[in-house]
Amino acid sequence: MKSDIQIAQEAEMMHIKDVAATIGIPEEDLEFYGKYKAKLSDELWEEIKDRKDGKLVLVTAINPTPAGEGKTTTTVGLGQAMAKLGRKAIIALREPSLGPCFGIKGGAAGGGYAQVVPMEDLNLHFTGDFHAITSANNLLAALLDNHIQQGNELGIDPRQVVWKRCLDMNDRNLRNIVIGLGRKADGMVREDHFVITVASEIMAILCLADDIKDLKERLGRIIVAYNFKGEPVTADDLHATGAMAALLKDAIKPNLIQTLEHTPALVHGGPFANIAHGCNSVRATRMALKLSDITITEAGFGADLGAEKFMDIKCRMAGFKPDAVVLVATVRALKYNGGVAKDQLSGENLEALAKGIVNLEKHIENVQKYDVPVIVTLNSFVTDTEEEIAYVRRFCEERGCEFALSEVWEKGGEGGIALAEKVLETLENKESHFHTLYEDDLCLKAKIETIAREIYGARGVVYDPAAEKQLAKIEGMGFGNLPVCMAKNQYSLSDDATRLGRPEDFDIHIREVYVNAGAGFVVALTGAVMTMPGLPRVPAANGIDVSEDGHITGLF
Amino acid sequence: MKSDIQIAQEAEMMHIKDVAATIGIPEEDLEFYGKYKAKLSDELWEEIKDRKDGKLVLVTAINPTPAGEGKTTTTVGLGQAMAKLGRKAIIALREPSLGPCFGIKGGAAGGGYAQVVPMEDLNLHFTGDFHAITSANNLLAALLDNHIQQGNELGIDPRQVVWKRCLDMNDRNLRNIVIGLGRKADGMVREDHFVITVASEIMAILCLADDIKDLKERLGRIIVAYNFKGEPVTADDLHATGAMAALLKDAIKPNLIQTLEHTPALVHGGPFANIAHGCNSVRATRMALKLSDITITEAGFGADLGAEKFMDIKCRMAGFKPDAVVLVATVRALKYNGGVAKDQLSGENLEALAKGIVNLEKHIENVQKYDVPVIVTLNSFVTDTEEEIAYVRRFCEERGCEFALSEVWEKGGEGGIALAEKVLETLENKESHFHTLYEDDLCLKAKIETIAREIYGARGVVYDPAAEKQLAKIEGMGFGNLPVCMAKNQYSLSDDATRLGRPEDFDIHIREVYVNAGAGFVVALTGAVMTMPGLPRVPAANGIDVSEDGHITGLF
Repeated sequence: MKSDIQIAQEAEMMHIKDVAATIGIPEEDLEFYGKYKAKLSDELWEEIKDRKDGKLVLVTAINPTPAGEGKTTTTVGLGQAMAKLGRKAIIALREPSLGPCFGIKGGAAGGGYAQVVPMEDLNLHFTGDFHAITSANNLLAALLDNHIQQGNELGIDPRQVVWKRCLDMNDRNLRNIVIGLGRKADGMVREDHFVITVASEIMAILCLADDIKDLKERLGRIIVAYNFKGEPVTADDLHATGAMAALLKDAIKPNLIQTLEHTPALVHGGPFANIAHGCNSVRATRMALKLSDITITEAGFGADLGAEKFMDIKCRMAGFKPDAVVLVATVRALKYNGGVAKDQLSGENLEALAKGIVNLEKHIENVQKYDVPVIVTLNSFVTDTEEEIAYVRRFCEERGCEFALSEVWEKGGEGGIALAEKVLETLENKESHFHTLYEDDLCLKAKIETIAREIYGARGVVYDPAAEKQLAKIEGMGFGNLPVCMAKNQYSLSDDATRLGRPEDFDIHIREVYVNAGAGFVVALTGAVMTMPGLPRVPAANGIDVSEDGHITGLF
Repeated sequence: MKSDIQIAQEAEMMHIKDVAATIGIPEEDLEFYGKYKAKLSDELWEEIKDRKDGKLVLVTAINPTPAGEGKTTTTVGLGQAMAKLGRKAIIALREPSLGPCFGIKGGAAGGGYAQVVPMEDLNLHFTGDFHAITSANNLLAALLDNHIQQGNELGIDPRQVVWKRCLDMNDRNLRNIVIGLGRKADGMVREDHFVITVASEIMAILCLADDIKDLKERLGRIIVAYNFKGEPVTADDLHATGAMAALLKDAIKPNLIQTLEHTPALVHGGPFANIAHGCNSVRATRMALKLSDITITEAGFGADLGAEKFMDIKCRMAGFKPDAVVLVATVRALKYNGGVAKDQLSGENLEALAKGIVNLEKHIENVQKYDVPVIVTLNSFVTDTEEEIAYVRRFCEERGCEFALSEVWEKGGEGGIALAEKVLETLENKESHFHTLYEDDLCLKAKIETIAREIYGARGVVYDPAAEKQLAKIEGMGFGNLPVCMAKNQYSLSDDATRLGRPEDFDIHIREVYVNAGAGFVVALTGAVMTMPGLPRVPAANGIDVSEDGHITGLF
């Protein structure tokens, strides 16, 4: 059996200008990065902005398990299948982070015969967007510490600096550090922290900004610290906005690549869904809607994180209205949720399936709360039995969902035709009455509690005293009307990663709350979620290599 | 008067494929980054490698002063002038670092009508080479700390970790830090340091590597730490080499851009010359030699740093033989060296000129020690008087140097014709008998002392006890045959930045010595030279902005 990277490297790619031509983008609106990647110009947006939007389909999933779900694979395969059915479809995805790529996860470009290419480029530096974000983030940090060093006119309290440095790397040793040691010329000593680039507020801002004007306004509003009086100090106060925006001027342009079957894919921005809002950029989705009949996009991790934030943050801010949601599961992952160990997932086990399918059930119920039609798909594995598939199909149909099997990993677009047909049927026959889960004018605690109860199924919310104080301060500063971005582990609906299935009788513990005034949301950290991952005992990096002729191996 | 960025933005650039065509590079050997930047493919090298080399001209300068010398401007203008004279010339430059760009220096792409373009791209992310180096550097650091965290099988002594993290940023607060604070899961506590990316050994390796094979061998040899027995631990020991090389697979390809007059320019790699070896990549220079009749390259800062390292490190390793050296000075900078304050440089002052010209004199003598013909050029300013120019001309001619005035800043290639003609005359009539300053088999101390005495004019060398110990250890490890890369302030021939002109009766103080086993040289730190700069009171970043249509201002 071929590995993902083998399949990707054997693919015959089309020149990206020919892919662009299939959706009516002329060559002059492309900024090439090699033959197979291009950024879309700002001029293109001006030309297409008054067109009618196509349909918007979100692909989300049950809670991830070590068994693998294949959300990106399904998204890509569904796009390929739509093209096979003669539909003008565009896929909108997030860019992968280097951190997990060298850590535990390997690449993130789909799998099997449903991948976006060139996968090595995508998984390494791609068009440099994340590097631009890292630079802008760390320029702001350097300007902040330089301000303190050079006399601290703004009266920044070194104990209340909230802006953190970042790297696109899994590097646990940078989670908690002390900087500025040495002599007077080496800066003011203070505690500091690095986060991974995908958790930087600038990543969120880039993904939510409408254009450079909006980007600059959002950058300027970033709260970097509080002064000795407790008042916020912003990036604008540090005169950092223009230089940060200059660093981001190309990064804000969506990237066009292709699937193995030459379906156009806009891959742009990449906040993690556990510690950030988990969606590709508003600009990419917006362009896709203008350029296609059907935009297929995904949100990170399970529907409790990615889909909730897609609906309540991205759609709220951008005014998007999803027309359908595809919910991805696998028989193996459902059995894992039913308590079966990772190495025992291959045999038929209807009992475990019935026990674990409650995870899918909860996600179906959740998406239905947004009044958007749901199609469940099983990303098929050779070990799935007919009985197991029939069980899941029945389960979904009893809950008012469409169901289709997906075989895109093995067969590419051809294997997604059943799913694509179900999606098309849904788009034609079932109307979406999309609304967000909560209104802007609910107070922050009510928002957090709504998400915890309605989406996670929690009994209630318990706040650390520090979080209580932070919430009061944030409301007092006038940010109570912002949506909430929950930071929670991805494995469980609860904030305890070990509780699989559909946990009950649990509370959500809010440890810390802060405002991302530039991104425009309030982040609530639950449980032990981390904003800087570590590397495993044997990092994926150990197995990655490049040959003398530039051929990469070990990215998977 | 127009600013550099105005002139650059008003320039009509040629599509880079048309620039490439002028030196016989077909489109299929280009990897485009937009319309005006391209990387040269590895295949191109295979096609041209057996061609005869063209001539190699190094542009260097007197010690830099706040008055400005214009070394890059002269390099670019000389290339433009050669093209005007019908010569097939290629310019080979370093890529600028983001750090100084947001700090004190502004952009680094030449000036006036002698610039390489697109200057905004060049000064910001360009083709991402520096970001790739930063990523590879920090991946190695993360793998190292992860190895310690996961059981430390190699017995790495946390007190003897020599590998430092890096950022392409002026950020003094990261010079001395403590990492790994927090809980057990947050790493092992140890002291750490960030350097600026241009000081990373990986920058030097990228610039000195012949190809991917050599790159990997050099990366693998990097010494990251010593174990508890005092033995070196390398990147190969950490299984980090392949993944680092994968991150660098595109960064190792030279970048092609153009001057304002469409002369081809290979801009690739960018180690600082004070804290590193200060030259663009061997690959770029090598390709330029095959693709042109005359390659004009520059080395960083003054000839005591840049030219010495160009000759003794880059030419030694790559087997290059420079045919002529252009030494750039300005009347203003010479008067500054003669003790005149920065705001008093405009009036004629032959006395100060005579006093300061000893700096030029020393650099002439130095270059002549390598037996390469020297042409001195004055980068002219409107405030220069005819008497002053005549004085410098006479001074140079008396010392066996050619002399020409350069007006490329004001007039572009046209203003460099006098200089270009002198260079051509020299190439035709004066033979270079280039040799390095010292032989490989001298011991390290003798190499350091040769550079200090012969090039800096020092009386002797004083070693800190720690440096003595390090030298003995490095010799003992078998690295005594490597060349030495001096880290010294750029302003003075001595290691005291305040001693201008031609200082005498001084010692060079060696504070620290370490081996860059991958780059293949031993670094000797003198005086108080720093590997991570800081930002000034009012950073250049404060004045940089981008308009709603993506137009950048404030980069200069």
